[in-house]
Amino acid sequence: MNNKIEWIALDWGTTHFRAWAMGPGGQILDHVKSDQGMGSLKQDQFEPVFIQQIEPWLAGRTNPLIAFACGMVGAKQGWIEAAYLSTPCTPPRNQQLVEAPTADPRVQVLIVPGLSQDKPADVMRGEETQIAGFLASMPTFSGVVCLPGTHSKWATVENGTVKHFTTFMTGELFGLLSKNSVLRHSVGGRGWDSSAFIGGVKLSMETPEQMGQELFAIRPQSMLHDLPANEARARLSGLLIGMELRATEHLWSSNDVCIIGDPKLAEHYNRALGFYNCQPTIADGDMMTLGGLHAVAVSALEQAS
Amino acid sequence: MNNKIEWIALDWGTTHFRAWAMGPGGQILDHVKSDQGMGSLKQDQFEPVFIQQIEPWLAGRTNPLIAFACGMVGAKQGWIEAAYLSTPCTPPRNQQLVEAPTADPRVQVLIVPGLSQDKPADVMRGEETQIAGFLASMPTFSGVVCLPGTHSKWATVENGTVKHFTTFMTGELFGLLSKNSVLRHSVGGRGWDSSAFIGGVKLSMETPEQMGQELFAIRPQSMLHDLPANEARARLSGLLIGMELRATEHLWSSNDVCIIGDPKLAEHYNRALGFYNCQPTIADGDMMTLGGLHAVAVSALEQAS
Repeated sequence: MNNKIEWIALDWGTTHFRAWAMGPGGQILDHVKSDQGMGSLKQDQFEPVFIQQIEPWLAGRTNPLIAFACGMVGAKQGWIEAAYLSTPCTPPRNQQLVEAPTADPRVQVLIVPGLSQDKPADVMRGEETQIAGFLASMPTFSGVVCLPGTHSKWATVENGTVKHFTTFMTGELFGLLSKNSVLRHSVGGRGWDSSAFIGGVKLSMETPEQMGQELFAIRPQSMLHDLPANEARARLSGLLIGMELRATEHLWSSNDVCIIGDPKLAEHYNRALGFYNCQPTIADGDMMTLGGLHAVAVSALEQAS
Repeated sequence: MNNKIEWIALDWGTTHFRAWAMGPGGQILDHVKSDQGMGSLKQDQFEPVFIQQIEPWLAGRTNPLIAFACGMVGAKQGWIEAAYLSTPCTPPRNQQLVEAPTADPRVQVLIVPGLSQDKPADVMRGEETQIAGFLASMPTFSGVVCLPGTHSKWATVENGTVKHFTTFMTGELFGLLSKNSVLRHSVGGRGWDSSAFIGGVKLSMETPEQMGQELFAIRPQSMLHDLPANEARARLSGLLIGMELRATEHLWSSNDVCIIGDPKLAEHYNRALGFYNCQPTIADGDMMTLGGLHAVAVSALEQAS
């Protein structure tokens, strides 16, 4: 198998490491993942972790293997800093890759830079590659790309260019509130209730200024009125996603929208937007990451050959 | 000294234990505190912890000593549940105290019940005693009492009665965001910047729907534009307090307001309200707790004698 591997796709974020062995025509030959995210590594640990994870792919090869990487691995605290490109700009291309220092001659690692915006100040690392993957498949798309997650991004895209983007702490707030706040006693488990979710979205859309009290209210409603945990959990998610939708209404109410992300989370956003008569298209986050790295890899490997 | 102690004031919350040895006329004879909050104790540990803390006050006494207690010690997971009184109601009186089970004949422990509200569902434990202390000193007050903290409360008070109250997660959100979120890299230290604080308050008062993005924006502003940590910290606090003030504007814009709390935190609220031409009076939180327990103790001890 190993001589069929043409390149490695590497998505290395704060809390995860994921690598794919890519064959001809974008075929996935193998896949490894681990929780050795950049957040827990010192600079000199990146190469050993990388080699350890992908070592089986190196055996018996005659040529060095190139990895194309995106995510926080290119942050200042990562393997090597891949300085941001400034918006408005096209998603990163092969000429803008930054090579990580490696001692092992069997590998080369090229990192995709993130995007930054001057006013209002904002940054992304990883999502630019998903946008690149999306634009590789939909080159004429004009509209808004929503990338839900720990730090959700909303990017306006026109003529293949990222014009502007905004970040929301929605996912991180959900994690903190559901695991570390007093609400953890009320939203336990992994249950879900669709109408409680939409109820939360509506509350935030209609009265965003009530956010602070609506969040706490989940606790006494479970104590005094036996609010079930799955309803409480879905309401909390709806309140937070609703705040994000309230702030981005000017974007999704009058533009084509594509949601790129984890399928389950994307479906929550889709449901909430659908309630307000917005019909987004949905693209799988991992596939868009691979698509973006593929676009970069193909042009880099063509240039090199 | 010990025979001069008339009763013990006990403020026992989720994360703290504080007891005062009270003498004639409300004089404070001694004071102990510890971090043995109810959140870390099982039911059978309350009496041993209590005795250990106040044991020096028991030596050489001829009469048993009564402690009047408020806070989460009276929650279901506390020493014994002191069932909530339902609003509208006057603050708890001595007839409504609940006696905790004790094996040691030298002490008796009476717990003040909290308040609950049916619609919208809400609860308090500890703040009702501060309101009682405030009303003991200002019996004719009509208006709004603001009790900032981990879970800030806003209570409307009329003719000595708590009519209604609302809770906000302001303090808990500040703690989670400044210590556990990505913002921790930007808001470190204990610094403060008054104009950044007011800037945050204004943002939330004027555009509460932008909250989600304004919170995250602190991070890229410190990364790209070198926003100093003290400004970032004060802005974060201002954004969160501003959300609370936006939601309570109908209360503070047209009523007398008293802030009861930690002096430093109360001063932040005072500054923010003052910016909007509201001039609250300020009362010290500990003094109000002692005042509330004193009011209960005096009438209970009179009745007993």
